[in-house]
Amino acid sequence: MEEVEVAPPRAHEVRIKILCTSICHTDITFWRQEGIHPSIFGHEAVGVVESVGEHVREVAVGDMVVPVFTAQCSECPDCLSDRSNLCSKLPNVPGSMPRDGTTRFSFASTGEPIRHFISVSSFTEYTVVDVTHVVKFDAAFPPEMACLLSCGVSTGVGAAWKVAAVEPGSNVAVFGLGAVGLAVAQGARMRGAKRIIGVDLNPDKFEIGKRLGITDFINPNDTGGKTVSQVIKEMTGGGADYCFECIGSTSAMAEAFQSSRMGWGKTILLGVVGNATPIGIPSHDIIRGRSVIGSLFGGIKPKNDIPMLAQKYLDKVIISIEQDFAWFYIHSPSHILILQI
Amino acid sequence: MEEVEVAPPRAHEVRIKILCTSICHTDITFWRQEGIHPSIFGHEAVGVVESVGEHVREVAVGDMVVPVFTAQCSECPDCLSDRSNLCSKLPNVPGSMPRDGTTRFSFASTGEPIRHFISVSSFTEYTVVDVTHVVKFDAAFPPEMACLLSCGVSTGVGAAWKVAAVEPGSNVAVFGLGAVGLAVAQGARMRGAKRIIGVDLNPDKFEIGKRLGITDFINPNDTGGKTVSQVIKEMTGGGADYCFECIGSTSAMAEAFQSSRMGWGKTILLGVVGNATPIGIPSHDIIRGRSVIGSLFGGIKPKNDIPMLAQKYLDKVIISIEQDFAWFYIHSPSHILILQI
Repeated sequence: MEEVEVAPPRAHEVRIKILCTSICHTDITFWRQEGIHPSIFGHEAVGVVESVGEHVREVAVGDMVVPVFTAQCSECPDCLSDRSNLCSKLPNVPGSMPRDGTTRFSFASTGEPIRHFISVSSFTEYTVVDVTHVVKFDAAFPPEMACLLSCGVSTGVGAAWKVAAVEPGSNVAVFGLGAVGLAVAQGARMRGAKRIIGVDLNPDKFEIGKRLGITDFINPNDTGGKTVSQVIKEMTGGGADYCFECIGSTSAMAEAFQSSRMGWGKTILLGVVGNATPIGIPSHDIIRGRSVIGSLFGGIKPKNDIPMLAQKYLDKVIISIEQDFAWFYIHSPSHILILQI
Repeated sequence: MEEVEVAPPRAHEVRIKILCTSICHTDITFWRQEGIHPSIFGHEAVGVVESVGEHVREVAVGDMVVPVFTAQCSECPDCLSDRSNLCSKLPNVPGSMPRDGTTRFSFASTGEPIRHFISVSSFTEYTVVDVTHVVKFDAAFPPEMACLLSCGVSTGVGAAWKVAAVEPGSNVAVFGLGAVGLAVAQGARMRGAKRIIGVDLNPDKFEIGKRLGITDFINPNDTGGKTVSQVIKEMTGGGADYCFECIGSTSAMAEAFQSSRMGWGKTILLGVVGNATPIGIPSHDIIRGRSVIGSLFGGIKPKNDIPMLAQKYLDKVIISIEQDFAWFYIHSPSHILILQI
C-alpha cells in the first residue's frame, strides 16, 4: 500500500472515488510485463464523481459512474458507426491520460509520477478518468453489479449479443469459464442458444455454469484421448455454430476454431494474449466457410450498451449468483484491501 | 492426349459434352500434388447434356449446363441455410463420383480407371457429373461467359456480394488481379465501393483492372520501401474496410489482414493453399475488431446464384472485355487443345 497524490481533473476529466473494484486477468497479464511500472492497475470498477474539470456536462459531483477502458467520444467515424466500438479520436495512450499524455498520479513521498493503466487505474481510492471513459448509473443500482458491468460481464454478454449475434437454436462452445466465459453463456442463453457447451479444466465450474446457461461440460483432461474439438463435433453433429475463446491462449484459440462447424462456424476471440504469437489456423481449414472474429470489450459501446445491460440485470435476464465466480472477485477476503476501499 | 472411355451416367448423373473449359490455378495446385494421378483435371466449363441417368428431372438431353465443383442437393441443413454454400449431404469424394465412390473414366487402351477431380473433370470431350453439380443455362447465353461463371467470376463476384456484403462507399483492397481478383473488383463496384485498390506485381493489370472497377494500383515492388499495408493505411486513412486475398499465399493473407482497418476491417480469404501453413495473424492484432473470413466458391449457392449472375451479365452489370485476363484462358493458342474440344 502506497500513499499516492491524485491531481485534480483537468478539462474533460472526472475525479472518481472508487467504491468497488475487481481484478481482471488482463491486469495480471500487463502487470507481468516489463517497462510499465510503476503503474496503478485495475480497470473494472464503480465509483462516485468527486470533482469534474472544465467542459464536463455529462456527469456531476455525486453521480455514480463506472469507468471503462474504451472511450466513446460519440463523434468519430468509429463512434458514429454501428460496426465499431473502438473510438478512433481518443485511443488509449499507454501510461497516461488520453488527451494530453500526462499523468495525474504521483508518489506522495517523492513526487515521482505513476503511470495510468488503460485510462482507468482503479486500484486506488481516487482516480482521474476522461469523461469519454465514464458511464453514469442510477444511484439505486447495486454497485457491485455495476462494477462487473464495467468489463467482464459486458465483454462476455456483448460478445454473444453484439459480436456473434448468436441465433436462436444455435450450438455454442465456450472455452474458459471465468467471469467472461460465464457471461458469454448468459449472453448466449439470452439470445436463445439451444446447447451451450462449457470447456474448463476445473470441474466445479460446471455447477456454477449450469445456473448461468451452460448445458454440457467438457474437461479437456477427461476426454478419453480425444481432442476437445473431436468431442464437440460428435456432440453437435459437425461442430458448434459459435465458439468463444475466453482464456487468452493461442492453443485454445486453435482448438476453438477446429471445434467450429464448416459452412458457417464463427470463432470469437475474447482472450487477450500479451504477445504476437499467431493464432495458428491452417489456411486450408478456414476456406470452408468458417471465420475468426476478434473483439475488444465484446463489441460494447459503453455509453449506449452498458445502460441496456444494466436494465437486463434489473429485469433478471442477466443474473448474478452468490457463488458466481465473478462475485468471488469482490467477496474474496484475499482481495479485500483493494476491493473495498 | 489420351483416348478415354467415359461410362454412361448412373442414377442422378448427367453425361455432358464439353463446349469450353478453362484453367483455374487450383487445377495446377492439385496437379502438382502426389498421389492423385491419373486424374482428369478441369472444373471450369460449359457443355451440353448428352445423356441422363435415372431420376434426373432437372435437365434433359440438349440442355446447356455448367458443371460446378460444389453440390447443391437443396435438402441438407447447409443447402437449406442462407449461411452456407457447402452441401453436407454430398461432399466431394476425392477422385470419384460423390454418391457411390466409383469412377466413370478409364483408359481406352488398358481399361485402367482414371480419377475424377472435384466432381467435375472438364479437360475431356465428355464427362459425367452428379445432377446436384450442374446449373442449367439458356441456350442463347454466350457459352464462353457461362464457362467463366462456373468458377472464377462467380467466386470473385460472390466474395464481394455474398461473403463480405461490401457496403456502399467502402474502401476495398484486392490482393492478386487474376480472374478471381478482377471479378472481386467487379463485385465490389456492383456493391457501390468508393475505392478499389488492386495489388499485383504485374503493372499491366492496372489497365485491365481499371475497366473492371480498380481505382488505384499498388505494385509491391514499387512502394519505396514501405509495406503494402503501410501504403494502404495511408491511402485510406487507417486501412481498408474489406481486403480480399486472391492468390493463395499465406504471406499475402497476413499482409491483407494488416491492411484492414481496426474496428471493423474484414479480410476475406479466397486463395487456395495446398497445405496446412497457418495464416499467420498475430493474436494481439485481431482483437481490435478485425475478422478473417474463409469462403469457398465466394459463398455462391450454384443453382440459386449463378442464374442471378448470368442475368447481371446480360444486364451489363458484370462485363467481360476482350483483353480481360479471364478471356485469355480461353483464347490463348497455347491452351487451345484442351480449351476447344
